[in-house]
Amino acid sequence: MDMSTVRMNNPVLQGFGFYASVLIVKMMAMSIITAVQRFRTKAFISPEDAAAFKGEVKLEDPDVERVRRAHLNDLENIPIFLVTGFLFILSDPDVVVALMFFRLYTLARLVHTFVYAVYVVRQPARAIAFGVGQLITLIMIIMIIVKFHQL
Amino acid sequence: MDMSTVRMNNPVLQGFGFYASVLIVKMMAMSIITAVQRFRTKAFISPEDAAAFKGEVKLEDPDVERVRRAHLNDLENIPIFLVTGFLFILSDPDVVVALMFFRLYTLARLVHTFVYAVYVVRQPARAIAFGVGQLITLIMIIMIIVKFHQL
Amino acid sequence: MDMSTVRMNNPVLQGFGFYASVLIVKMMAMSIITAVQRFRTKAFISPEDAAAFKGEVKLEDPDVERVRRAHLNDLENIPIFLVTGFLFILSDPDVVVALMFFRLYTLARLVHTFVYAVYVVRQPARAIAFGVGQLITLIMIIMIIVKFHQL
Repeated sequence: MDMSTVRMNNPVLQGFGFYASVLIVKMMAMSIITAVQRFRTKAFISPEDAAAFKGEVKLEDPDVERVRRAHLNDLENIPIFLVTGFLFILSDPDVVVALMFFRLYTLARLVHTFVYAVYVVRQPARAIAFGVGQLITLIMIIMIIVKFHQL
Repeated sequence: MDMSTVRMNNPVLQGFGFYASVLIVKMMAMSIITAVQRFRTKAFISPEDAAAFKGEVKLEDPDVERVRRAHLNDLENIPIFLVTGFLFILSDPDVVVALMFFRLYTLARLVHTFVYAVYVVRQPARAIAFGVGQLITLIMIIMIIVKFHQL
Repeated sequence: MDMSTVRMNNPVLQGFGFYASVLIVKMMAMSIITAVQRFRTKAFISPEDAAAFKGEVKLEDPDVERVRRAHLNDLENIPIFLVTGFLFILSDPDVVVALMFFRLYTLARLVHTFVYAVYVVRQPARAIAFGVGQLITLIMIIMIIVKFHQL
């Protein structure tokens, strides 16, 4: 392996940069959606918010909690994928395989958010979207361990 | 671009290393502050803690929950910033602009924690601190996508 | 320093790749354990899950909440360690010291999960496991700052 893995003209890194950006913007959007739901339902989480925006402190609004659960699931998975992705790039993977993984993972997480927090679809829709993301992360980890230890 | 972006003598990486360290120490401090609040109010989260430290299991203490909300907001934002920052460094940005972003983001998150969990300031203090952090992350992402795709 | 720090044949990076993978798989297992506990106790978090799997919506099951607290503690610490580890590798540390840190941190987090969510051990078992992880992260951060600024 040469140092091409962390060069900007490495297509794996370029692809990762793009899909990582999509996932990060998607996660940041969850904060906005939560805030929108809080203003819509007037169910705020802190007394100073309720005071400023003429609502009340209410921790159990179902629409707000649904978005927060989707957000928490992102937190449990996407940062892990991003770190795994960096290690995966350093393991110098096949370009086609790597881009397929990044695309499929991004798609799976977009579907997960959609069926969880935007338009609720009955199970196992969310379980499948979640499982696809987990599976791709796991395959990447196995490939990282194998590549790093065959030297 | 040459490989200077991930060399230790790259001032962008040096700056990132410093401000990332400040943000990480700040996040780690949230655990300590939560623990201090739990001991002060004797409101523990697990039965074995209540047993060992002569308190009770109490999940809704407002002072503890306030620190935990600030911590959760950190979790929703700072790891994303750290990963974005790495990609940003690889995109070989202007040193002055990059350091300004890192400094402003760090300041915004310190202010966010202060007005949320240390000395409560009325809204929109927290909303502005949060928004500045989000805006900087978003600008960095846009610059990453543009740079990675102009090759 | 030369660019050897982000080469795959750098033993510090190889060691980090391995222990980061262990920690990531451990974190991913928390989702599985949570799901297993939810199916065992029939205490689901979303109405569509309760409908599909013949359970009820119940947010306060103690066994489920215990696993979720352990998972949340992972979220508060492991992503930070992973980012710190990357910066630590770039600071070109001594191989023996670095691998000792990675091993000890991984061990501390495995113990933390075990005494919190698998077989509950009385305090201060969990506090010590947590503290060891925090201490190693902090030492790594101090070493990063020192190394990055002695140039």
